[in-house]
Amino acid sequence: MKETIQTAVVGVTGYAGAELARLLLHHPCLKSKPPVFVGRVEAKDAARGGIPLGEIHPELIDSKGSGALKQEPFSWELLKERGVDILFLATPHEQSREWVPEALERGMRVIDLSGAWRLTEAANRAVYAFEDDGTELAAATQLHAVYGMPELHRKQIADARLVANPGCYATSVILPLKPLVAAGLVDLKHGIVADSKSGVSGAGKSPTAKTHFMYAADNLSAYGLFGHRHTGELLEQIGIAGSDIIFTPHLLPIPRGIMSTIYVRFNDAQTRASLMKVYREFFAGSPMVRLFDNSLPQIQNSVRTSYADIGFQLDASGRRAVIVSCLDNLLKGASSQAVQNMNVMQGWLESEGLE
Amino acid sequence: MKETIQTAVVGVTGYAGAELARLLLHHPCLKSKPPVFVGRVEAKDAARGGIPLGEIHPELIDSKGSGALKQEPFSWELLKERGVDILFLATPHEQSREWVPEALERGMRVIDLSGAWRLTEAANRAVYAFEDDGTELAAATQLHAVYGMPELHRKQIADARLVANPGCYATSVILPLKPLVAAGLVDLKHGIVADSKSGVSGAGKSPTAKTHFMYAADNLSAYGLFGHRHTGELLEQIGIAGSDIIFTPHLLPIPRGIMSTIYVRFNDAQTRASLMKVYREFFAGSPMVRLFDNSLPQIQNSVRTSYADIGFQLDASGRRAVIVSCLDNLLKGASSQAVQNMNVMQGWLESEGLE
Amino acid sequence: MKETIQTAVVGVTGYAGAELARLLLHHPCLKSKPPVFVGRVEAKDAARGGIPLGEIHPELIDSKGSGALKQEPFSWELLKERGVDILFLATPHEQSREWVPEALERGMRVIDLSGAWRLTEAANRAVYAFEDDGTELAAATQLHAVYGMPELHRKQIADARLVANPGCYATSVILPLKPLVAAGLVDLKHGIVADSKSGVSGAGKSPTAKTHFMYAADNLSAYGLFGHRHTGELLEQIGIAGSDIIFTPHLLPIPRGIMSTIYVRFNDAQTRASLMKVYREFFAGSPMVRLFDNSLPQIQNSVRTSYADIGFQLDASGRRAVIVSCLDNLLKGASSQAVQNMNVMQGWLESEGLE
Amino acid sequence: MKETIQTAVVGVTGYAGAELARLLLHHPCLKSKPPVFVGRVEAKDAARGGIPLGEIHPELIDSKGSGALKQEPFSWELLKERGVDILFLATPHEQSREWVPEALERGMRVIDLSGAWRLTEAANRAVYAFEDDGTELAAATQLHAVYGMPELHRKQIADARLVANPGCYATSVILPLKPLVAAGLVDLKHGIVADSKSGVSGAGKSPTAKTHFMYAADNLSAYGLFGHRHTGELLEQIGIAGSDIIFTPHLLPIPRGIMSTIYVRFNDAQTRASLMKVYREFFAGSPMVRLFDNSLPQIQNSVRTSYADIGFQLDASGRRAVIVSCLDNLLKGASSQAVQNMNVMQGWLESEGLE
Repeated sequence: MKETIQTAVVGVTGYAGAELARLLLHHPCLKSKPPVFVGRVEAKDAARGGIPLGEIHPELIDSKGSGALKQEPFSWELLKERGVDILFLATPHEQSREWVPEALERGMRVIDLSGAWRLTEAANRAVYAFEDDGTELAAATQLHAVYGMPELHRKQIADARLVANPGCYATSVILPLKPLVAAGLVDLKHGIVADSKSGVSGAGKSPTAKTHFMYAADNLSAYGLFGHRHTGELLEQIGIAGSDIIFTPHLLPIPRGIMSTIYVRFNDAQTRASLMKVYREFFAGSPMVRLFDNSLPQIQNSVRTSYADIGFQLDASGRRAVIVSCLDNLLKGASSQAVQNMNVMQGWLESEGLE
Repeated sequence: MKETIQTAVVGVTGYAGAELARLLLHHPCLKSKPPVFVGRVEAKDAARGGIPLGEIHPELIDSKGSGALKQEPFSWELLKERGVDILFLATPHEQSREWVPEALERGMRVIDLSGAWRLTEAANRAVYAFEDDGTELAAATQLHAVYGMPELHRKQIADARLVANPGCYATSVILPLKPLVAAGLVDLKHGIVADSKSGVSGAGKSPTAKTHFMYAADNLSAYGLFGHRHTGELLEQIGIAGSDIIFTPHLLPIPRGIMSTIYVRFNDAQTRASLMKVYREFFAGSPMVRLFDNSLPQIQNSVRTSYADIGFQLDASGRRAVIVSCLDNLLKGASSQAVQNMNVMQGWLESEGLE
Repeated sequence: MKETIQTAVVGVTGYAGAELARLLLHHPCLKSKPPVFVGRVEAKDAARGGIPLGEIHPELIDSKGSGALKQEPFSWELLKERGVDILFLATPHEQSREWVPEALERGMRVIDLSGAWRLTEAANRAVYAFEDDGTELAAATQLHAVYGMPELHRKQIADARLVANPGCYATSVILPLKPLVAAGLVDLKHGIVADSKSGVSGAGKSPTAKTHFMYAADNLSAYGLFGHRHTGELLEQIGIAGSDIIFTPHLLPIPRGIMSTIYVRFNDAQTRASLMKVYREFFAGSPMVRLFDNSLPQIQNSVRTSYADIGFQLDASGRRAVIVSCLDNLLKGASSQAVQNMNVMQGWLESEGLE
Repeated sequence: MKETIQTAVVGVTGYAGAELARLLLHHPCLKSKPPVFVGRVEAKDAARGGIPLGEIHPELIDSKGSGALKQEPFSWELLKERGVDILFLATPHEQSREWVPEALERGMRVIDLSGAWRLTEAANRAVYAFEDDGTELAAATQLHAVYGMPELHRKQIADARLVANPGCYATSVILPLKPLVAAGLVDLKHGIVADSKSGVSGAGKSPTAKTHFMYAADNLSAYGLFGHRHTGELLEQIGIAGSDIIFTPHLLPIPRGIMSTIYVRFNDAQTRASLMKVYREFFAGSPMVRLFDNSLPQIQNSVRTSYADIGFQLDASGRRAVIVSCLDNLLKGASSQAVQNMNVMQGWLESEGLE
């Protein structure tokens, strides 16, 4: 019989937080212990013990009473009292920088969904301008961090105290490219192009000019050219240089989903079979990646699933390919990957609670 | 030869303002005199003479140079200097309350797109909570106001100094109902239902939780039940009591367009022909209303046109009807109606510049 | 320990069929016995044993192998061989008319998602123009049919051999109205208005002019005025006459979800508390209805859930109310309700597999 | 004073046809002569002289009576009788192949919106599999054809008897690339990537599985990899080989608009100023191209305008650029470009009737 654990979630109010709550509330290994939800709670709500989940996300109300669970005011004492084993942070980068060291100090294992601890190279971290970068504490904390992509770092995640959950765009670019680059197939001199498109939930819940329905609907816009902050993750995890790739995100007029269309040249001519073999071997034992054999993935196939879908097409010469990857930015691009990491950390079935 | 005039627009930055600019820039009678655009301009932009229209609304850039026109800092002196004849206010209600008296005092004619001066009954104005309500100046100004729906008040508009341009929802409910109620056909005891649905541009340009793409997209929500502030306009213009109608607005997941589905009972059995006759007579000489003879209007037919579309279906008894009206909330529901009013005020062809 | 059963699904290729497959594949009581999928299969696919589910609906592929399950060629022999206990028909009306009598004859219990057996009155069935209407077999079959809305007919469903699963619009209108009408509160002389709006999946999977993206997107259209075929269900189940209600469906530019905005007058003044009491008592023991106490349901809250959401607002007089109901047309409006019926028929928890 | 001409349109029923009708009906030089609309007309409609435009496209009804104009049954006699000068074909490729030779023979000038006559190289035409390819008549007709992109072939278009109006995707890729390639800046060895995204109207009006709202909405899909039929146009007009570029179209969940995100490397380091100079010089005298100096174009800026918008961003090295082009596939990508060609053929202002 699998042992259960106590989880806690900071930041259930956001989009990824809501999906994380849904996944944890229905996770077969957590049935007897719903997560503790903590965060910023105003005085009037604190007076009634917190904000009911059903008021924050009416779609989470169910006949098991999930809607009555409350987001309580954050305090380290509360987490201790509840005996939290794994702490999920769906918080802004700066907040994760501040809280993770103390959480580790207090013996909790942390899965951080922000970009706070994903990057090992200072040059790549520069884009975030972390105020504490360079301090001893930050450096020490970074040493504990494992990049939370089980398909690449399963073993380290199993033992990790701090898992830095990957960015959504990064996941959609690393998964299809890593196997080919690792196998030495890709002609880096000619350069890789990753043209990515994401739904609006990727831009967060704060109302801004760019998340206004009138801006996003019936539109498509490119942004962050030559400078999106997920670029550092791509480079470090795939193992390439900035001059090897151009990564361009676009804002799609849909709520959820990411597609990356990736253009590569190969050092030697490939066949569909040779590439499928590389992918199959790389993703053997990786239940959350679906390889498309005879067709290309579409955003609709992966949205509201926990899978990353990968397909490709070769040109007649076998020297050029277009690779298409799709995933749900809130799930495999955030919350599902976090739960997948928890499953690995606990030694549970990696796909538990994700289908 | 028609004489041209000088127009000015306050509030070009909003959605209705952009459409108003487009209409005025291409209006055949205003070719030699583009509008003066004025509004709030920050110091750095004031230093360069204002903000180029092309930066505010890139879609207005054309080969005639419209994109280089500037929104200049508002001042009464500037309006005087430019010899403004008609001032369009696409401003918040409170600002219109403040500015209109001075504009009239300075001899300009005003077309106000806000709700500031539409209502003659104090009880109906209560919903706006105007701070100056009850003052002598406000009362005197209100006396000048004509409700700017040419189909109802063409003659008064021709001579008006202040035209209170109707609300978008109100237009979509008044136009289909007024002819039937005025003809005494409608059984008011049984009550009218006006179930209205509007695109998101009706909610304005400020980013809010409700205009966030994630809230509006793939959704439908009802709001303002028994209390939407366009209700007063309906009652005054149709000439009915609050107990005679229920008006319910909904937020549609589309950028533009309003549909009102209106349910009425008749005192006596009607036929399609008898109702069409009433409508045709009422709208004779009204070029911006299109009657649908054999089908029902849809939002797509009227969006990006200046028309209000009306159609209906009777039940077998002839005693009940469903009437459907559609219009573009930014055009016939705002800017086009404002230009239509200008045309009437100037004695120009009523549909000039609107097709 | 709950006993499992063998289910079969005809019509997995459609939208409701896909959702039904997803629900049955993950139903806790059916873990050891995936459904048998049968239907029309072309010769080339029959040669490989049928069409893999993963080719029909790539989003159903999972690590449990669901994508490899096949839709096999329909035959009564196959169903017998597999020992099918409950047969789900997600088929056209005419096909259900033809197949249900034989299925009953062969001892299977049937849950029919079409409109074939929902109506007891010949006048209401006229809209379908069933070719076999009036035959003895049809009449005998109709006697077995129970209208599959557990909130109204839980006991009869438990023992039913044939469950006629309700229409999506009908569900969204019956659930909010039945409790009030049954309690004698509604003033029928003044008439009820049900203004309903549905996403495009309700129009089925066949490509038509009306399901074309260019027709449906950025649009809203009313249809089926005074004649939609769900009207008969409303009347029979609520227990009112055709002259008591006007029901108008609209096509919303969203994939899924129904909202019905319902206007009623009461014989006597009501309060929020008095109405909530009526609803609470009526829906006691009904886990799939969520009552909204302080706000109105929106389509987003219920989409991709199995719930019907109900909320309302009274006017100041207490004599008029606007009731808003929302549900997912493919779930509580079709597949989830079918599974809910199965749960009732088997004596399982009514919400099993639906959250 | 400009002389007017008689135009005719075959294929007003489609999306591009509707836009073409709208443009021609409001064209300042055609005020006294509305286009002749011809096409396939069923017997019952032929009996009443054709199908009123207002029944085909209700949004074209206006107070000038445009809705009463009729699509009449096609015949060469009718075109002769009406004295047609320029014939617009918004017809399928095969139909254009058949009709153009006769139209030319009869002395009309033709602007063909199909792909029938765009390609000079047999290898590129293979994708269309024209049945008459290789015949003398086809070869002779092809000799008359001028590729209808005024920015590239203004002089030849002025005198052309047959203008082959460009494809929508092709326009969005040729315009931004041609100036750079013609100036010898682009490093073709490293390859160009053109990642294009188009709204659903590009897929035509026939209801298909891919134009179904449920397929297109909330989705993104790539198609036509390494084989889309606009590829030949790109190659011939830009003057590059198939191995120099990868062009990948995607289906966007919006009604209209194309964005192409184009990735190039330069032989030598460039600056923003050096590239803007190349573009400015190339597009001097081209009113329908808008260069974005400080920002990137978005689909919203160009939709429902007749412009092609171009912007770009260089990386720090000056050796790589991402170029973004946007246009409305039905306007600059089809109908507006056709009208622009007519303007050039008649010696009118090139932007006449396009703003």
